[in-house]
Amino acid sequence: MGVAVSHFVHPQGICESDQVGAGTRIWAFAHVLPGARIGVDCNICDHVFVENDVIIGSRVTIKCGVAIWDGLCLEDDVFVGPNVAFTNDVFPRSKVYQAELPRTVVRQGASLGASCTILPGITIGTKAMVGAGSVLTRDVPPYAIVVGNPARIVGYVDAGNGAQRRAARVTQTSSGEDWPRALRVSGVSLHRLNRADDLRGSLVSGEVTSHMPFEPRRFFSVMWVPSKDVRGAHAHRLCEQFIVCLAGSVAVVVDDGSVREEVVMDEPHVGLYLPAMTWGIQYRYTPDALLLVMASRPYEPDDYIRDYDEFLTLVADRAK
Amino acid sequence: MGVAVSHFVHPQGICESDQVGAGTRIWAFAHVLPGARIGVDCNICDHVFVENDVIIGSRVTIKCGVAIWDGLCLEDDVFVGPNVAFTNDVFPRSKVYQAELPRTVVRQGASLGASCTILPGITIGTKAMVGAGSVLTRDVPPYAIVVGNPARIVGYVDAGNGAQRRAARVTQTSSGEDWPRALRVSGVSLHRLNRADDLRGSLVSGEVTSHMPFEPRRFFSVMWVPSKDVRGAHAHRLCEQFIVCLAGSVAVVVDDGSVREEVVMDEPHVGLYLPAMTWGIQYRYTPDALLLVMASRPYEPDDYIRDYDEFLTLVADRAK
Amino acid sequence: MGVAVSHFVHPQGICESDQVGAGTRIWAFAHVLPGARIGVDCNICDHVFVENDVIIGSRVTIKCGVAIWDGLCLEDDVFVGPNVAFTNDVFPRSKVYQAELPRTVVRQGASLGASCTILPGITIGTKAMVGAGSVLTRDVPPYAIVVGNPARIVGYVDAGNGAQRRAARVTQTSSGEDWPRALRVSGVSLHRLNRADDLRGSLVSGEVTSHMPFEPRRFFSVMWVPSKDVRGAHAHRLCEQFIVCLAGSVAVVVDDGSVREEVVMDEPHVGLYLPAMTWGIQYRYTPDALLLVMASRPYEPDDYIRDYDEFLTLVADRAK
Amino acid sequence: MGVAVSHFVHPQGICESDQVGAGTRIWAFAHVLPGARIGVDCNICDHVFVENDVIIGSRVTIKCGVAIWDGLCLEDDVFVGPNVAFTNDVFPRSKVYQAELPRTVVRQGASLGASCTILPGITIGTKAMVGAGSVLTRDVPPYAIVVGNPARIVGYVDAGNGAQRRAARVTQTSSGEDWPRALRVSGVSLHRLNRADDLRGSLVSGEVTSHMPFEPRRFFSVMWVPSKDVRGAHAHRLCEQFIVCLAGSVAVVVDDGSVREEVVMDEPHVGLYLPAMTWGIQYRYTPDALLLVMASRPYEPDDYIRDYDEFLTLVADRAK
Amino acid sequence: MGVAVSHFVHPQGICESDQVGAGTRIWAFAHVLPGARIGVDCNICDHVFVENDVIIGSRVTIKCGVAIWDGLCLEDDVFVGPNVAFTNDVFPRSKVYQAELPRTVVRQGASLGASCTILPGITIGTKAMVGAGSVLTRDVPPYAIVVGNPARIVGYVDAGNGAQRRAARVTQTSSGEDWPRALRVSGVSLHRLNRADDLRGSLVSGEVTSHMPFEPRRFFSVMWVPSKDVRGAHAHRLCEQFIVCLAGSVAVVVDDGSVREEVVMDEPHVGLYLPAMTWGIQYRYTPDALLLVMASRPYEPDDYIRDYDEFLTLVADRAK
Amino acid sequence: MGVAVSHFVHPQGICESDQVGAGTRIWAFAHVLPGARIGVDCNICDHVFVENDVIIGSRVTIKCGVAIWDGLCLEDDVFVGPNVAFTNDVFPRSKVYQAELPRTVVRQGASLGASCTILPGITIGTKAMVGAGSVLTRDVPPYAIVVGNPARIVGYVDAGNGAQRRAARVTQTSSGEDWPRALRVSGVSLHRLNRADDLRGSLVSGEVTSHMPFEPRRFFSVMWVPSKDVRGAHAHRLCEQFIVCLAGSVAVVVDDGSVREEVVMDEPHVGLYLPAMTWGIQYRYTPDALLLVMASRPYEPDDYIRDYDEFLTLVADRAK
Repeated sequence: MGVAVSHFVHPQGICESDQVGAGTRIWAFAHVLPGARIGVDCNICDHVFVENDVIIGSRVTIKCGVAIWDGLCLEDDVFVGPNVAFTNDVFPRSKVYQAELPRTVVRQGASLGASCTILPGITIGTKAMVGAGSVLTRDVPPYAIVVGNPARIVGYVDAGNGAQRRAARVTQTSSGEDWPRALRVSGVSLHRLNRADDLRGSLVSGEVTSHMPFEPRRFFSVMWVPSKDVRGAHAHRLCEQFIVCLAGSVAVVVDDGSVREEVVMDEPHVGLYLPAMTWGIQYRYTPDALLLVMASRPYEPDDYIRDYDEFLTLVADRAK
Repeated sequence: MGVAVSHFVHPQGICESDQVGAGTRIWAFAHVLPGARIGVDCNICDHVFVENDVIIGSRVTIKCGVAIWDGLCLEDDVFVGPNVAFTNDVFPRSKVYQAELPRTVVRQGASLGASCTILPGITIGTKAMVGAGSVLTRDVPPYAIVVGNPARIVGYVDAGNGAQRRAARVTQTSSGEDWPRALRVSGVSLHRLNRADDLRGSLVSGEVTSHMPFEPRRFFSVMWVPSKDVRGAHAHRLCEQFIVCLAGSVAVVVDDGSVREEVVMDEPHVGLYLPAMTWGIQYRYTPDALLLVMASRPYEPDDYIRDYDEFLTLVADRAK
Repeated sequence: MGVAVSHFVHPQGICESDQVGAGTRIWAFAHVLPGARIGVDCNICDHVFVENDVIIGSRVTIKCGVAIWDGLCLEDDVFVGPNVAFTNDVFPRSKVYQAELPRTVVRQGASLGASCTILPGITIGTKAMVGAGSVLTRDVPPYAIVVGNPARIVGYVDAGNGAQRRAARVTQTSSGEDWPRALRVSGVSLHRLNRADDLRGSLVSGEVTSHMPFEPRRFFSVMWVPSKDVRGAHAHRLCEQFIVCLAGSVAVVVDDGSVREEVVMDEPHVGLYLPAMTWGIQYRYTPDALLLVMASRPYEPDDYIRDYDEFLTLVADRAK
Repeated sequence: MGVAVSHFVHPQGICESDQVGAGTRIWAFAHVLPGARIGVDCNICDHVFVENDVIIGSRVTIKCGVAIWDGLCLEDDVFVGPNVAFTNDVFPRSKVYQAELPRTVVRQGASLGASCTILPGITIGTKAMVGAGSVLTRDVPPYAIVVGNPARIVGYVDAGNGAQRRAARVTQTSSGEDWPRALRVSGVSLHRLNRADDLRGSLVSGEVTSHMPFEPRRFFSVMWVPSKDVRGAHAHRLCEQFIVCLAGSVAVVVDDGSVREEVVMDEPHVGLYLPAMTWGIQYRYTPDALLLVMASRPYEPDDYIRDYDEFLTLVADRAK
Repeated sequence: MGVAVSHFVHPQGICESDQVGAGTRIWAFAHVLPGARIGVDCNICDHVFVENDVIIGSRVTIKCGVAIWDGLCLEDDVFVGPNVAFTNDVFPRSKVYQAELPRTVVRQGASLGASCTILPGITIGTKAMVGAGSVLTRDVPPYAIVVGNPARIVGYVDAGNGAQRRAARVTQTSSGEDWPRALRVSGVSLHRLNRADDLRGSLVSGEVTSHMPFEPRRFFSVMWVPSKDVRGAHAHRLCEQFIVCLAGSVAVVVDDGSVREEVVMDEPHVGLYLPAMTWGIQYRYTPDALLLVMASRPYEPDDYIRDYDEFLTLVADRAK
Repeated sequence: MGVAVSHFVHPQGICESDQVGAGTRIWAFAHVLPGARIGVDCNICDHVFVENDVIIGSRVTIKCGVAIWDGLCLEDDVFVGPNVAFTNDVFPRSKVYQAELPRTVVRQGASLGASCTILPGITIGTKAMVGAGSVLTRDVPPYAIVVGNPARIVGYVDAGNGAQRRAARVTQTSSGEDWPRALRVSGVSLHRLNRADDLRGSLVSGEVTSHMPFEPRRFFSVMWVPSKDVRGAHAHRLCEQFIVCLAGSVAVVVDDGSVREEVVMDEPHVGLYLPAMTWGIQYRYTPDALLLVMASRPYEPDDYIRDYDEFLTLVADRAK
């Protein structure tokens, strides 16, 4: 891309702002109002409109036909597909103005697919991927992939360096002999429990040592989770966990800060072990899903890390 | 807003029409064809295209990236969000033209959210609110809130002066002692009926005087209403009604011309009294909903007011 | 049958009681203990055993292989089929005796089919009919027909002189023009309501005068009745009723003291009118049945006649 | 009852056996063949037939109309109700005889209600109670109460001295403050777990010490048990258990050898603690029942006591 | 059994009839009235009662506690279990007599299990087997096995010489290579069709020659058969059939007059070929069962043999 | 439209390509990059953007607000509605470029409704019609009509000259006497089969000659097809077919190359005959649909024509 010493404006484009970074290009029929602030090396395509109270980071791409209204903030490396529609008024009426606009924030590296629609006041997390044609009605977590009208989470982007890819999906096939099975995510493993099925029902059992590498101090079960909801999305400093999906199915995302994998748990006789300092997310619950979690420690609120960025920092600190 | 003596066209905008009202602004890269008629104090944003056979009222806002095709009429105070797509051909083929275009009308004060798509020949009622990203495939009643692809009614806007708000929702909680309960809508009240549940079933009963303030001359029941449908949507000149939802649940909108409230009826032992001259709508039927209505008068076709504007006029006349 | 001046005992039978009425016959291998009291013209078949603390009325038939234990009372005209098994201990243990036996009573004219089993302490009502092979676990109302293990009500015997017959079943066919339709039971009639079905659901309506001959002062609805249960089973002195089955189906028995009919109500647009002094029973509810009843008077506890014999007496008094 | 030095035969009864115990009475029209062996203090009522290859214990009651065929054994204290029908041929054909008869055994203290039918080769356990009119198609466990055609377990008789009673049912009501709650059965207790319900689902959790008095070394879950089946029915020598019913409901019988109670577990946030040497049975599973059991020890086959009589002996030994 | 020149009556039995065949034994407390006609080599056990208008064939066994009423006919080789209850009045009332009794017929070789109850006017077919404790409310076809209250067909007895056995059940396992598979019933075979399943659905196909040995001239499909019902029960003189169960499952009985087998068809890719002169019965339909039958000939009413005895005769004729 | 000797560019439009055909018009604020190739008589409306690596055929219409990216090909006569959004990156990240772009092709005569979104690499077939607001996630077959997010097939466009219309829908009404019924599509006919319904189930039958004009050599059944899927979509050179929908319902499209009709088959007693050289498609399967097809020939892979254009050619050849 070379080193640009200044920004470029197409002869048929209009740029009224003087806060545009070097290397940024503003193309034909695009229009940037005086108050907008834009970073370096951005690409503002034809027919884009940028209002005044707007902050755009560096290396942002805005494809044709998009309007960036007052109140929006696009962080570095964001991609905005063609005809994406932002909004800044929950209940718009002509000539009726709000005292204060809800703020929409698109975090670093997130991508918005073509034609998607973002309702006011939403935050789209780091590296999230919004599918083309989606209608966003609530916040999108970091690294989540969402689609639909209204948009729902259907997957997660790989963590670490692999953010251009969907997280790998691990098949929880319970056949075969090689148990336990290590995943690529550090320390995480799948364990085959005992199972006996007959006409009198089904029995699944697991023992300390044979199946799980710790003595449980606590158990909990989660059920009746609406399929569109996500539970978990945190890591533990010290607590280890052992997860079994006794009924239905659920997808569990595990992430050690470098690698992210996703396991669909749909067989009651397979357990998933998470060591401490593993980021975990559960989602895509079927209506009948019933999750059993054994934990190595009692409930300690301070053991939870609920912010993914903090988790990444802690992982990096430990690696030093 | 000040008094504008003429309309404004940005230097990079194109206005070929001479029928544009005072105070209307036409911004950069917008293009108005010669035949278009536009009222006063409108805002025609960047990248808007207005064809010839178009009528636009006063105080209309059209956000970026919208095209207003031949055959469209936007009445006063309409709001059109960014990237809204109108159409005027049911079965478009390149270079195949229809003898007569279906006409799309957006009535006074209606708002179209960002990116929504309007199929040809649709009427969007007074003050209606179309959610962002919706695809409209049929008419929208006055004051209705619609969302989705295809769009369905999910609520109603408050009547009277409160059209910038969703109608208040009243909780039909049957506990407590304060019965009957007056709603804010004039004369409307909730009544607790007798109920006895045991292993042999459930019995609900109500009596004249104790529970309903009139002697029924007629009853009717409504059932098997598809959940996307609306029933009712009319007022009576003289007839009073007493509504009980014996099974399932249904939302009832009540409106006296000034205030609009919505009651979700989901307990069979609560009745809703509507005096004469109350606009009522029933919608969001669950599949098993069974509505019982007792009426104070026999069926008289002339007693029905089916046009909301006529209802408002009659309410105003009575208030004189 | 002739006039019997004394009772008869077969040479191979044993009768130790001296309280046996004239005309009663006691057959081979039958055995009557000293304390038993037996009325006139009974037939005690082969292999019957009658204990001491037993009262048997007149014209009773007891077929082969039945034992009548202490604590039983069979009123006049009772029929006991072959191999019927009575009991008198809820939790029998060998050599463990109860201080007081529960009393089983079979009322006048009732019939017990072959091989049925009667648990202790049960009352079987007047003219009731217990199907062969049934296991009775609770009381049987007068005139009821019960079958199964455990036994459930499946019909009713005709009232008045027709007790040898099942009550006639009236088809509630809503087609045809002849409305309202009088039933054979005095004053009872079926009325066709208005009904409109379309894609938006189904509406049923009825008006005073056109459809029901009184102005309702009260309504009640009954739902969620287990299919094995019976509701109603009473008459009103003054109150008239109008019954509509808005969902599912239910059988309604109507009885004026002389004639009994049964109407299966399974169409929501047909109403059933019951004048005062009509005995009514509702049973065979489908799980989704929802009954709406309009009443001509407020709830008055004294208006209810809950004893069928009292009802018959009152009917007879009025006929004088 | 006095001390009988010999047995009694009614003048109209026939006793061809000389192996009848003192105090036993054989009544009119009863017929005992030469090979039958009968204990002391029995009561053989009218119309009973006893074949040759039969063993009847002491203090047995056989009510009227019962035939005891070759191949049957009734242990001490058995009660056989009137018209009970035993069988000894699975596929009877007239004049076709089997080489060897299947043996039916009724264990000590069991009771067979009136009119029940017992298929060939069945064992009815100690103190079991068979409801009147039942048809037995498989073995009945000790202390079980069965009814129906075919018969199913519907409850259990109290253990210890209370065998004349149904086991007490404990309500698992989770409200109130008094937790944990001791049951009457020695050492058994109910514990309230943490529970949090919201729109995102339901979470139940329990911790060692706070909720369960041991550290789990093993867990197992049981599901998809047909409602007519029984699981469990054993005690542990050393292992403690903690039972939670995460979905549906199940009845758990607990028994310390002296007292028997039954707990219906239908709330996922209540746990049931069983110390070692507690007999436990689970039955009446709803189709969706999912039982979670935490155990204090690994799986040790020798820790199981599967025979109730052995359990009683061990309890008695420990009490010495 | 030896050669009996006369019949035997126990000293305590009563036989008033002089139409009793040689070798027949009448035991203690049994009672035969004067009009009864009884064949040779019967066994009339203790406590049996036989009325006047009764015909009993030869080699009939009647176990204890049974009464044979006026109107009954038991053909040769019938077995009647203990405490079986016959009836002869549909709506019994004490001292109310019918002009004509409904006739109950038990055909040659049929067996009635202990304690079963037979409603009036029923015919029980040749070699049928009625399970202990059943309540018969309708006719039983030849060779059928019925159980329950009310009794339903649950299987068939083997034909020909094997009538002491249940018909063999053939597992329709579609795995393996040996296709087509001949059954023991003459000429009947199972054929594996082609099947392809993928996410787009399931396809089953069959071709003439490869899968069925005739060219179909007719097809028919049978669905929505209540699970308690039986269809088929006939043979064809000339028509061949090819049966596929496309959905659900059904049991097909095939019988060549000597051997009878039963195939549970529950896989849509298996066809069953029936040559001409094969008796076929379909029963135990699941609610979703959908049977497809291809026939080698058009519909010809005269091709049907609907009477099993006629079928046997024709088979025998052909064998000559 | 006249004869244009050159193309037109609005004074406010930008056309940098010199490969634009005669008669093509490029309107205000439209921008065509140098590499684009555009055919004759196109209409490129206001605010359209055309990148370099683009091929646009002749007589193409592109409405306002559309961007045509590198990698797209629009064949002759394509219609692109306003605000349609194309894409060319499956996982877009700002400043991350793919080595090779997936190619999107819109085939001759297809139309894309307003605001629809097309994911990368999709082919939209000849004359297909994409409904307004749809999100395309997979290929669209020729002549298909698709709508929704994600888009599904809801119908087909008429073939031959009628491509401006939806294919006619034929009602499969089984009443009336005029059987068989010829459709407009050449040689295709509907046939009424025999049907008998009673309490024992439902039987449908058909015979050669009476109901189908050929002798089947093969049958196949199709079931469990997801409702969004399409099966069939081919013609046969020689094989005739006879289709019956035994359960559920399915829509069958038939097409002789000139006329296309659609039959909803929802009655099991109606068969549809397709002669050779008839294009057939089955779709809109209900979950319970079960299709039975009889074929006049064995399975011959070469008999299938799976490409619609090849079919049209063959039809035309035969017509010569």
